[in-house]
Amino acid sequence: MSARDEWDVYFQQLQEPSKLQVQAEQVRRFVSEHAKAKRRIALVTSGGTAVPLESNTVRFVDNFSSGTRGAASAEYFLQEGYAVIFLHRARSLEPFSRHWAHQSLFSILELEAEASGKATAVVKSSVASDVSCQLQNFQKYCKSSVYLAVSFTTLADYLFYLREFSMVLSTAGPLALFYLAAAVSDFYLPEEEMPKHKIQSSGGPMQLHLQQVPKMLSPLVKDWASSAFTVSFKLETDERIIAEKARGALEKYKHQVVISNLLSTRRNKVTFVTLSDQVEISVSTESERELEDLIVSELSRRHNEFLHAASTS
Amino acid sequence: MSARDEWDVYFQQLQEPSKLQVQAEQVRRFVSEHAKAKRRIALVTSGGTAVPLESNTVRFVDNFSSGTRGAASAEYFLQEGYAVIFLHRARSLEPFSRHWAHQSLFSILELEAEASGKATAVVKSSVASDVSCQLQNFQKYCKSSVYLAVSFTTLADYLFYLREFSMVLSTAGPLALFYLAAAVSDFYLPEEEMPKHKIQSSGGPMQLHLQQVPKMLSPLVKDWASSAFTVSFKLETDERIIAEKARGALEKYKHQVVISNLLSTRRNKVTFVTLSDQVEISVSTESERELEDLIVSELSRRHNEFLHAASTS
Repeated sequence: MSARDEWDVYFQQLQEPSKLQVQAEQVRRFVSEHAKAKRRIALVTSGGTAVPLESNTVRFVDNFSSGTRGAASAEYFLQEGYAVIFLHRARSLEPFSRHWAHQSLFSILELEAEASGKATAVVKSSVASDVSCQLQNFQKYCKSSVYLAVSFTTLADYLFYLREFSMVLSTAGPLALFYLAAAVSDFYLPEEEMPKHKIQSSGGPMQLHLQQVPKMLSPLVKDWASSAFTVSFKLETDERIIAEKARGALEKYKHQVVISNLLSTRRNKVTFVTLSDQVEISVSTESERELEDLIVSELSRRHNEFLHAASTS
Repeated sequence: MSARDEWDVYFQQLQEPSKLQVQAEQVRRFVSEHAKAKRRIALVTSGGTAVPLESNTVRFVDNFSSGTRGAASAEYFLQEGYAVIFLHRARSLEPFSRHWAHQSLFSILELEAEASGKATAVVKSSVASDVSCQLQNFQKYCKSSVYLAVSFTTLADYLFYLREFSMVLSTAGPLALFYLAAAVSDFYLPEEEMPKHKIQSSGGPMQLHLQQVPKMLSPLVKDWASSAFTVSFKLETDERIIAEKARGALEKYKHQVVISNLLSTRRNKVTFVTLSDQVEISVSTESERELEDLIVSELSRRHNEFLHAASTS
């Protein structure tokens, strides 16, 4: 079965998200406006995907991901002048608010007594100036319509959005950049093998036979958005296999960059792997710049070269 | 193998949370103070447990639960005069802040221009009075030391905390109430069967053989805190089996109340099942009172009867 057929069969089994057409229409307007202005457009994916194990979902398999990489990178793409579509797991980190999102709301607020004797909740003085500054940044990008956020929860939602948005983005040609930082499940339970009701623990040990999710990079690079600049991520826990796996992915899918990282050192170090070079990018723990700042600068430079090559070829 | 032996074997395989002793010491002081004051103490558990599928965790099985029931109930237990230990999944809902926790921080704040021209982040005027009121409530209970929050992520963390805290709570005798609203996984992957590294998708479909988690209600009611008032929950998706399953649990573990609920109607209706009666509690969608308000009132009344019976027997 070709990769294309495999994907068609796979999508036919899944239920599309109810908001798919509404969201696609928003993305269409967004892409059309920015492509017309010759602005580069990044689709940043972020966070993990939930894979249901029951139709009436009580249990699911998830990928460990708070969305740190994606949220920080989206911020830097905006600073680099990109229009950004942020396709993220619901309730994972988002650009600008990410610095406080893991704290509970009430740890950021304090009560201030008013002259009337009434107490009012205000942002704690210790963080007030940072919060104000980031909220200003956030509102600035929202108002200038260069930021569009779409959220997903399940693997199926994510894949439907990705396919739809990719095809829309393909209309922007080489201006489009895909930054696929989401931690997407490699496995799923086909609908027809899914129990309708909650799996009963009285039935003894649970046997799960999960099927492989076809690799989306294949149709994305070949069919959905073949003239875009595409960056995928490879996260492993085993140092011995990572370089080989990154190069293997690049040779197989023929996209522009694989960014490989190890679970244990992913906050400080990544490796850019392309067909012509391999570059390590790292920050020390004392560095004032975030790793994502360096990653996005380097990608922006390479994307410009790619655009230049596309326009002269 | 007896239930007790089964639990000992199970715990020996798990790694205890690093903060276990520190948290247990906090709980010890909390329980001792309130038991001395003859105050009732509720241990409310809330949210789902994560079950790792790899030692270097990338993937895990989770239970769908935002912690709505637990967080709302903890609030009403405080209002009923209980001292509350809130054992909850990290980043799930918490009492008082729960009303806004699912919104992003920046959707609750707005910028206000100061005389100096600087913009400052303040709580949006549309929610300011509600937020202030709930923050006041929260701070009031925190200051009077009747609220203690402890968070967990994995199933193992949850079980270690539950065992330790139960044994501490048993010193409060019938003043202790267990409200076990957390969505605890019935299955886990034993450490020795866990791959060290990320499971490779190139290996084909994934076979998972999950073992059953021994039922914690058994040692809790028999050994850890046998004189407490214990309330467990039964969540099912199939209406046809729920009544029978609730009664079965009650007869097996011999605790005080099973609260049964269906996934589809759980926000509006629960059924109290005891050895002597079965009572349905429900709210209409227009009701001003929350379902958890009614549940906790009814439990408080029954817990008082239980205390009275214990003191006269």
